[in-house]
Amino acid sequence: MKGTYIVGVDIGGTAIKFALIKENGYILKKWETPTARKDNGSYIPEQIAHSVEEKLSEFDLNEEQILGMGAGAPGYVDVKNGIVYEAINLGWENFYLKQKLEEHLNIDTYVLNDANLAALGENWLGAGRDSNDLIAVTLGTGVGGGIIVNGEIINGVNGTGGEIGHITSTPNEGPRCNCGRLGCIETYASATGITRQALQALEKQVSTSLANIHKEKGRLSSKDVFKEAAKGDQTSQMIIDYTADLLGKMLADLAVSVNPSKIIIGGGVSKAGEQLLQPIRKSFQSYALGRIADVCQIVEAELDNDAGVAGAAYYVKQRKQ
Amino acid sequence: MKGTYIVGVDIGGTAIKFALIKENGYILKKWETPTARKDNGSYIPEQIAHSVEEKLSEFDLNEEQILGMGAGAPGYVDVKNGIVYEAINLGWENFYLKQKLEEHLNIDTYVLNDANLAALGENWLGAGRDSNDLIAVTLGTGVGGGIIVNGEIINGVNGTGGEIGHITSTPNEGPRCNCGRLGCIETYASATGITRQALQALEKQVSTSLANIHKEKGRLSSKDVFKEAAKGDQTSQMIIDYTADLLGKMLADLAVSVNPSKIIIGGGVSKAGEQLLQPIRKSFQSYALGRIADVCQIVEAELDNDAGVAGAAYYVKQRKQ
Repeated sequence: MKGTYIVGVDIGGTAIKFALIKENGYILKKWETPTARKDNGSYIPEQIAHSVEEKLSEFDLNEEQILGMGAGAPGYVDVKNGIVYEAINLGWENFYLKQKLEEHLNIDTYVLNDANLAALGENWLGAGRDSNDLIAVTLGTGVGGGIIVNGEIINGVNGTGGEIGHITSTPNEGPRCNCGRLGCIETYASATGITRQALQALEKQVSTSLANIHKEKGRLSSKDVFKEAAKGDQTSQMIIDYTADLLGKMLADLAVSVNPSKIIIGGGVSKAGEQLLQPIRKSFQSYALGRIADVCQIVEAELDNDAGVAGAAYYVKQRKQ
Repeated sequence: MKGTYIVGVDIGGTAIKFALIKENGYILKKWETPTARKDNGSYIPEQIAHSVEEKLSEFDLNEEQILGMGAGAPGYVDVKNGIVYEAINLGWENFYLKQKLEEHLNIDTYVLNDANLAALGENWLGAGRDSNDLIAVTLGTGVGGGIIVNGEIINGVNGTGGEIGHITSTPNEGPRCNCGRLGCIETYASATGITRQALQALEKQVSTSLANIHKEKGRLSSKDVFKEAAKGDQTSQMIIDYTADLLGKMLADLAVSVNPSKIIIGGGVSKAGEQLLQPIRKSFQSYALGRIADVCQIVEAELDNDAGVAGAAYYVKQRKQ
């Protein structure tokens, strides 16, 4: 194989995703492997190294042809030194990931927060192409985010940049968040948050259709809420409208600071597409300064599960130029 | 005169401030001149050029010794092209400031928003020294702001970055802002906003001491509120606490995105010092993620009226390195 490649790695609690990507963005190969979680994730660096070596030899590439490796970790990262301060899902604390990976592989390695890299991935190959200033929001089990300004990720001073799930939507009231405080946007706009709102509606016995699903399946999901709203269930629609209103306001406040050209909504909940995006746009318009809203598009993410590895590779490309 | 100097200019509605600053931050000379506002500010570029030429000759400097000139304008700026989209106080609309200045002076010129440059000035020579990530808030007639991330100002995609005065504190309620929307932080935390709260308290006849001042002087100011609170007036203290609570929440939400090491509070209202900063810190602590609050100091601005010219010079220095 000729040419120069970059390795992108996205370390999750369940699986580690990899990609071999050319500098121009062409993805040569994607693969993944289950995360070795034993002994507080201490085998993960070795596991990554082996998997990369294997794939390089499969493609007849040597380490000199690799410009660098980017790795996303699900936690707070000291980007300068490549240390993961804390990644609860993996059992890491002050984990010297860069150093450990470089002991096994002769490849320059960069470590960042996974959500921040996902934003950068969308910026390179996805919905954020041609944007220098964007906000990416991931509505999954939690609410994550990544912010790009002047073409660069905001990592922050102790790796906590872009943690927008913990922006307070309802000060001093509302559900308690995992972070210990009340009313974080995550407690409303995550899949879990939407489900919680649906279960709360059941308690109030306001929706027959959600109650029927709950009775049938023994559980409710955020998908059910979107499905029932599409069928005309008022309660489900009210949950979506309320959630979108909070999201639109949060994004407007953030956009007033960042003045981005794109806001990219990704994660499982974003699969609802326009059913979610339209009310978010409406709310955003009403809360954002005119000049901010005029230039800012709110769009769905494009890369799905590839955003992390793409962003990891792009970060390397940015450093090596 | 030997050495290389930078010219910093801060164009206000009343006066234009200038400084001749050495690359190391040493301020050789500061001066100012009343703003030539006639004919929609069309003489301002000429005025600036003459004033700079005069000063250079006074200090026996020639244009070749000037690394560049930075100019802050009170409006939205197209930084790339040096065009002021709009500066209402000066009467400018799509005003080609960079081009006009460079027609008069043989000096490379950069144009930015004044509040953003003030943040950069504090970053260079003031309370933000040694910080790469900071938020600066100016509590004056309005609420302005500037955000620095990875050592660079956030100008945004159409020059509206850092307009944090228009973050919504009370969604869909509260006083109407100049921007047309309801409940912007500016309508509470500016000098005008604090005075408005005091006048509202008078209507409710809850504070004898504020009422007495109003009767005596025929008016009330934000300073009176701080003065009476210090003397024990409960209503004045409640106004300060409420304002600080809104500011602390706004800053916490913003800090969760930016993860800064410093938040710098400047402008006339900030002269209240610890009387204002302490309740802001308390509120910030309660709304910010622990990791965010742990590393973020909230401090008073140091440069006062020099922040703008210092930031203008520093921006030139950053570009020319």
